Amino acid sequence: MDIKTEQLGTVIKNIREKQPIIFHITNTVTINDCANITLAAGAAPLMSFCAEEIEDICSFAAALVINIGTMDKQMRDMAFQAGQTANRLGKPVIFDPVGAGATRARKELVAQLLAKVQFSVIKGNMAEIKSIYGIENRENRGVDSVEDLENGIEIAQNLALQYGTVLAITGKQDIISDGQRVARVNNGTPVLGKLTGTGCMTASLIGSACGANRDYFTATAAAVAMMGIAGEKANAQHSAGNGTVRVAILDTVCNMTAEGFMESENIELL
Amino acid sequence: MDIKTEQLGTVIKNIREKQPIIFHITNTVTINDCANITLAAGAAPLMSFCAEEIEDICSFAAALVINIGTMDKQMRDMAFQAGQTANRLGKPVIFDPVGAGATRARKELVAQLLAKVQFSVIKGNMAEIKSIYGIENRENRGVDSVEDLENGIEIAQNLALQYGTVLAITGKQDIISDGQRVARVNNGTPVLGKLTGTGCMTASLIGSACGANRDYFTATAAAVAMMGIAGEKANAQHSAGNGTVRVAILDTVCNMTAEGFMESENIELL
Amino acid sequence: MDIKTEQLGTVIKNIREKQPIIFHITNTVTINDCANITLAAGAAPLMSFCAEEIEDICSFAAALVINIGTMDKQMRDMAFQAGQTANRLGKPVIFDPVGAGATRARKELVAQLLAKVQFSVIKGNMAEIKSIYGIENRENRGVDSVEDLENGIEIAQNLALQYGTVLAITGKQDIISDGQRVARVNNGTPVLGKLTGTGCMTASLIGSACGANRDYFTATAAAVAMMGIAGEKANAQHSAGNGTVRVAILDTVCNMTAEGFMESENIELL
Repeated sequence: MDIKTEQLGTVIKNIREKQPIIFHITNTVTINDCANITLAAGAAPLMSFCAEEIEDICSFAAALVINIGTMDKQMRDMAFQAGQTANRLGKPVIFDPVGAGATRARKELVAQLLAKVQFSVIKGNMAEIKSIYGIENRENRGVDSVEDLENGIEIAQNLALQYGTVLAITGKQDIISDGQRVARVNNGTPVLGKLTGTGCMTASLIGSACGANRDYFTATAAAVAMMGIAGEKANAQHSAGNGTVRVAILDTVCNMTAEGFMESENIELL
Repeated sequence: MDIKTEQLGTVIKNIREKQPIIFHITNTVTINDCANITLAAGAAPLMSFCAEEIEDICSFAAALVINIGTMDKQMRDMAFQAGQTANRLGKPVIFDPVGAGATRARKELVAQLLAKVQFSVIKGNMAEIKSIYGIENRENRGVDSVEDLENGIEIAQNLALQYGTVLAITGKQDIISDGQRVARVNNGTPVLGKLTGTGCMTASLIGSACGANRDYFTATAAAVAMMGIAGEKANAQHSAGNGTVRVAILDTVCNMTAEGFMESENIELL
Repeated sequence: MDIKTEQLGTVIKNIREKQPIIFHITNTVTINDCANITLAAGAAPLMSFCAEEIEDICSFAAALVINIGTMDKQMRDMAFQAGQTANRLGKPVIFDPVGAGATRARKELVAQLLAKVQFSVIKGNMAEIKSIYGIENRENRGVDSVEDLENGIEIAQNLALQYGTVLAITGKQDIISDGQRVARVNNGTPVLGKLTGTGCMTASLIGSACGANRDYFTATAAAVAMMGIAGEKANAQHSAGNGTVRVAILDTVCNMTAEGFMESENIELL
């Protein structure tokens, strides 16, 4: 099976046809970027900080994205309730454990969420994922070397099996695994590190993809690849700075077609 | 009377001369866009989430915009107090009932705000306005057809009379009514739907216009037309995606002149 | 001593080499801009609204920026705790007293913060700084005239000595003083007033500079000059509007080099 050819193109096609509503409980730093990338992908973002409407929103939303970013209390309380409601209603829940391991408060919140909510996808950089895996890692590096890649695949597979989830590790290379299958995306570019919100936007794309597609592994690989391709195109404008890159990422995702998307050579099933 | 010729140009001229301070109680998704469009129009945005300064701010602000967007508790509590304070001090209050009808919590909040605050302008898309009118409408469509337009005019006039307000329904065509007069703006473009915050920004423009002009009907028609014209110009760059469109909307409003504005052919008094 | 030649270039070089983590307690209007300008400068932004992680973050952050912008309760409570923790751990604290004097609540909060937290840098426009100085000033003007400049220098020096801090007054001309030394930056351009967040972004640049440099006076002068130069370059695109200017400011700071920076003629040691 070649993951590139039809499946990935279908993921994007399904987002645009179904226009799924993606419920976000997320941070205020990149909340606007998350809304715009969701629209760019063809889905419909819904951001709420109102506990009283969680049940209603989960009933018509197609997926839930939980991003612990700024760690404000309102978000922390809602994350549990929304996650469990989405679980009960059978909607996929995507987890972006921003800064996991950086502070004790984040470590505790991440552990509690992992214990009480069943996630369909967990996405983080190597430092965040290693913290979940129980390896302390003060350096916030991505998958930059061969050892990282081999370690990353093992960690991704193990965590995917442990939590019954799809696990995505983002970096210069991205690794996605559901425990059985493993995909690698090679589009990561350093320019994404100069812009806030690229990780958060990736989670929104994963939410958009899982809200419109049943195979969350393929959906996640496609979503991660969408951001990778957008970053690659933005990289051509790198010298212009992060203001231009931000605009370019949204524009690229807006104009991404199933066909053009499938032409990318940088997604491999391992 | 031709609403196009002088009055609309005067609205924008007054904003730039008076530079009114527009107090916003709004959501965190598009709060930055609302601030920048207010500055682009020539007014001065002031965003606060501090209940203790409502009285002071309302005393020097020229208008208040209430947008229920993310529905966080802080905003909900402040909306009543700020709305009633602005009412007492005779400052216009603009209401953007984002997602009205989508959840029970929103429906209740909207009903309570309508009962306790006197709004000068209520602006929403067809689904939001129909929810206020008491018609359930699961599809979030704008004014796309002739029937919609005729229905829209009737709804706008009736609601305007019922609440003693100016009522604006936005969509492919926008309808504005104060119960007696009805205006239609034809600049609506689909591109606005691909960008978050265009509705919120329209409310900020209405606030800016009402903060500097006494006739809220004309001010609202002009503000809605400003966003329509900005969308139309941005549409020429549609293929560039929503990143570029966002920049283009701000730029266009920044450079809008009373004269250029009046040349637009797409505003009609019905 | 000529402040221009080596020292300012060294400030920017140090930011890029040390990549200091800058902890922000800031408003939700411009929080994304603050994160992106910090990244553009070469530092790493960290925004948190979680009181429980203040101690951990202050231990590894290189500087703290407190911006009272939207005045929400969460921020107000955290500002004291974070400021005092950073003081105890010897990390520089930068204070942006947004709208100081505009309302009684802001005046009180500013007075209490000044009493309980030792700031390394206080930055504001003339109206904000005059409010701290005890001069009521309803007009929110910058340093536009010779009298303003002379007054400004006196105010900056006196306040710097009174609070044992570096004091920066921003406007058409910027004044920076540590009580002994005084620097003036002449790059201020009116275009910065048409964009929200330029003041907040300046505070983030000061935080980035102080997080990587020991002489906070020189660091602050360099940071203020960075924004001035960015504004000047953006001004060439002024006719494009504030959407374009926002992108241009981030791009310019991204591409600023120590060498190019030192060529600027507009920074004087008085």
